[in-house]
Amino acid sequence: MMTPAARSDLQTLFGNRLSVSAAVLAEHGQSESLMTAGLPDAVVFPNSTAEVVALTQIATRHRLPLIGWGAGTSLEGHALALQGGISVDFRNMAGVLEVRPEDRLVRVQPGLTREALNLDLRTTGMFFPVDPGANASIGGMAATRASGTTAVRYGTMRANVVALEVVLADGRVIRTGSGAPKSSAGYDLTALFVGSEGTLGLITELTLRLHGLPEAVSAAVAVFATLEAAVDCVIAAIQMGIPAARIEFLDPATVAACNAYSGTNLPAAPQLLLEFHGSPASVAEDAARFQELATSFGAGDFRWAEAQEDRNRLWKMRHQAYPAILASRPGARAIVTDVCVPISALARAVEETRNDIAASGIPGPILGHVGDGNFHAILLVEPDDAAEIATAKDLAARMAARALRLGGTITGEHGVGFGKLPYMAAEHGEAWSVMGAIKRALDPLDLMNPGKLVPQTD
Amino acid sequence: MMTPAARSDLQTLFGNRLSVSAAVLAEHGQSESLMTAGLPDAVVFPNSTAEVVALTQIATRHRLPLIGWGAGTSLEGHALALQGGISVDFRNMAGVLEVRPEDRLVRVQPGLTREALNLDLRTTGMFFPVDPGANASIGGMAATRASGTTAVRYGTMRANVVALEVVLADGRVIRTGSGAPKSSAGYDLTALFVGSEGTLGLITELTLRLHGLPEAVSAAVAVFATLEAAVDCVIAAIQMGIPAARIEFLDPATVAACNAYSGTNLPAAPQLLLEFHGSPASVAEDAARFQELATSFGAGDFRWAEAQEDRNRLWKMRHQAYPAILASRPGARAIVTDVCVPISALARAVEETRNDIAASGIPGPILGHVGDGNFHAILLVEPDDAAEIATAKDLAARMAARALRLGGTITGEHGVGFGKLPYMAAEHGEAWSVMGAIKRALDPLDLMNPGKLVPQTD
Repeated sequence: MMTPAARSDLQTLFGNRLSVSAAVLAEHGQSESLMTAGLPDAVVFPNSTAEVVALTQIATRHRLPLIGWGAGTSLEGHALALQGGISVDFRNMAGVLEVRPEDRLVRVQPGLTREALNLDLRTTGMFFPVDPGANASIGGMAATRASGTTAVRYGTMRANVVALEVVLADGRVIRTGSGAPKSSAGYDLTALFVGSEGTLGLITELTLRLHGLPEAVSAAVAVFATLEAAVDCVIAAIQMGIPAARIEFLDPATVAACNAYSGTNLPAAPQLLLEFHGSPASVAEDAARFQELATSFGAGDFRWAEAQEDRNRLWKMRHQAYPAILASRPGARAIVTDVCVPISALARAVEETRNDIAASGIPGPILGHVGDGNFHAILLVEPDDAAEIATAKDLAARMAARALRLGGTITGEHGVGFGKLPYMAAEHGEAWSVMGAIKRALDPLDLMNPGKLVPQTD
Repeated sequence: MMTPAARSDLQTLFGNRLSVSAAVLAEHGQSESLMTAGLPDAVVFPNSTAEVVALTQIATRHRLPLIGWGAGTSLEGHALALQGGISVDFRNMAGVLEVRPEDRLVRVQPGLTREALNLDLRTTGMFFPVDPGANASIGGMAATRASGTTAVRYGTMRANVVALEVVLADGRVIRTGSGAPKSSAGYDLTALFVGSEGTLGLITELTLRLHGLPEAVSAAVAVFATLEAAVDCVIAAIQMGIPAARIEFLDPATVAACNAYSGTNLPAAPQLLLEFHGSPASVAEDAARFQELATSFGAGDFRWAEAQEDRNRLWKMRHQAYPAILASRPGARAIVTDVCVPISALARAVEETRNDIAASGIPGPILGHVGDGNFHAILLVEPDDAAEIATAKDLAARMAARALRLGGTITGEHGVGFGKLPYMAAEHGEAWSVMGAIKRALDPLDLMNPGKLVPQTD
């Protein structure tokens, strides 16, 4: 609980940018997940790094947890205030600070969303490729090491965040990384903070790698007779090194939901959505190689979407797959899974998952960034049906265990938050305690997003 | 100093794989650098992770530093035993444990050299691209976050190490990463250990990303009238996104040294060595675009080396540039610099460095991986001439300061060791103390490669 003295300190610092209204607290106490624990005691809207520094001093004095808030799109309860405290909403720190075309870098604030960034870049010939689907904040995407549809070509946030400004728990401001394309000057703190989910400090500035807009883009839908054929085709393409920019898998249930939601008319069969980026000649070559390969895996239907308008419709449909799947069972909520396995184990992981879901009676469309070995089952449950929720959670736990058994990871891109805490020991063993030791070294009072990611000692 | 009790414990564990002979100690007390401090008390040759674990227990009991030793090719004194202790020579742990062609992964031991790895892979159609020139050990390359000529296309060790087994100071064995292409399951410990220079633990196993051997390869030499034209051409190529696999710069002094040493007959002028990888069509397209660009920057001489034999000769010459430059001043030793700057600052950084070296009277050929903004001046000094050494060290310090002023880093690929310690505070500010806090959290007794990388408290 926040004391009157703490509230007074926050009031002095933030004035009317401190809120304790029920509506604002509730907005910052909900998430896309089923998790509902975690209303903050207050929400603040800092305007500057200096204010974040002053905030950490107040938090230390009054032992108040600090939880970063970007766009609220995370799926594992990352931004919920499990132990109360202050939700630090970065909506006022959402600027593009500097575009450096010669270095293909951009310096931004954490509250900026990826769509706003790309809108800002639209006249530069460059773009920021990481695309988790939701219009997430860049700070949140860095904090959760997000990726999405284009990671198979452009990498995840790990590859595309090159420098950070971070406010530590004790109020020190550090800068990690530089504008140089590479460095071996000590521990890679940028990589440590990317994916640290606000547990080591609050990111107040990011330098991102930009990419040139491809000269030519071509997209396609390839329809297969079976899930196995679609996945085996992806595996072969990856192994042959065909450089697709996107390789998305949709199962029939996902396609049906998308058709109903987006008005598309794709055949209700396992299919791949593909995109190729490059010069006109290389795109033509890559696409032709992929089509030949897909045909050899029995893809009967191969539709090209070369016009920008057609591509936009295709990817808009894909990005709306999550609401489309939710809408396919009115009133349902989703438990979203996110495993990632070695490419060699992908077919087996998807098949076993599909069979397990089919046997459970819970609707669970499967889709994924299969070029990365990453796929999701969206398990749809009645929010009031405890038995369904328990069944879905068992399915999710078995998916996590299966991914680990096959040499993969419990989360390809959604992060740990507190939703994935139960699986961390199984994935990391003693390495998880090393994460805890690093956390304690940088945040001995456990004020930075407590209850998430690292082992919980009480 | 090692006590008789410590020696007895080591003798029991390692038998005749413990050495205290003067010759073996001397071999592990020298380096490619001018630094000569640091003879170990003993050298051990472990055969297994279990032996490394037992070694950490002996080291803890007797407070003996442990310093990893790979191939001894590091340039910043990384493997020198500054405070005595045990040099842990991994030559017996040099195997290829598992090749996973479907996942394009390979699991290896730390003492394996990169040339031995690629020899082992020669029938697989895959290769490990990171190429620092020297035939370094994979463990050492990971520990120093090495890169080299191909990083512009394939990335550094940061991008190509996907999982590790590490023995911590307290004897715990952890595994970081997995075989999945990506993960957001907690702190990126793989990235933390890559570049940690043995200060956080000893790497006992590595999983590396492999790449398909390119279908087509083409190499070329482009000769320019001036250094500025060569560097400006590189900047333009990077900004246009021409995907070269190698872009190496040689200044006239480097070319002269290489010609004398390798029997080549390249014109003594600023030049770029280039290589393109891909399909026959994409290589032809990329090479043609580059040649057109180079011509527009006044490159008069553009020689193609398409036959494998010609390419091998070219890159062998490039890889022998360091001994060639050393041989150009008989009896001299080298102080090797390694700055890396944003591409936009590359021309200025190289020009100012050249002028500074020219004014100093010290020979200092310049070469570099300019596609990454990374270049080296090889400052040649008489080892007995204190004034020359002081002049060279001043030049190196000004290069480091210049790189930082231009937004770059003091070391692109050689690492910190203890040679670069004096510049770490200037590069990282408070972030350097964060590195120290992480070090203390994982190695409170400061037994893992003490005296390197982090702030030194005594």
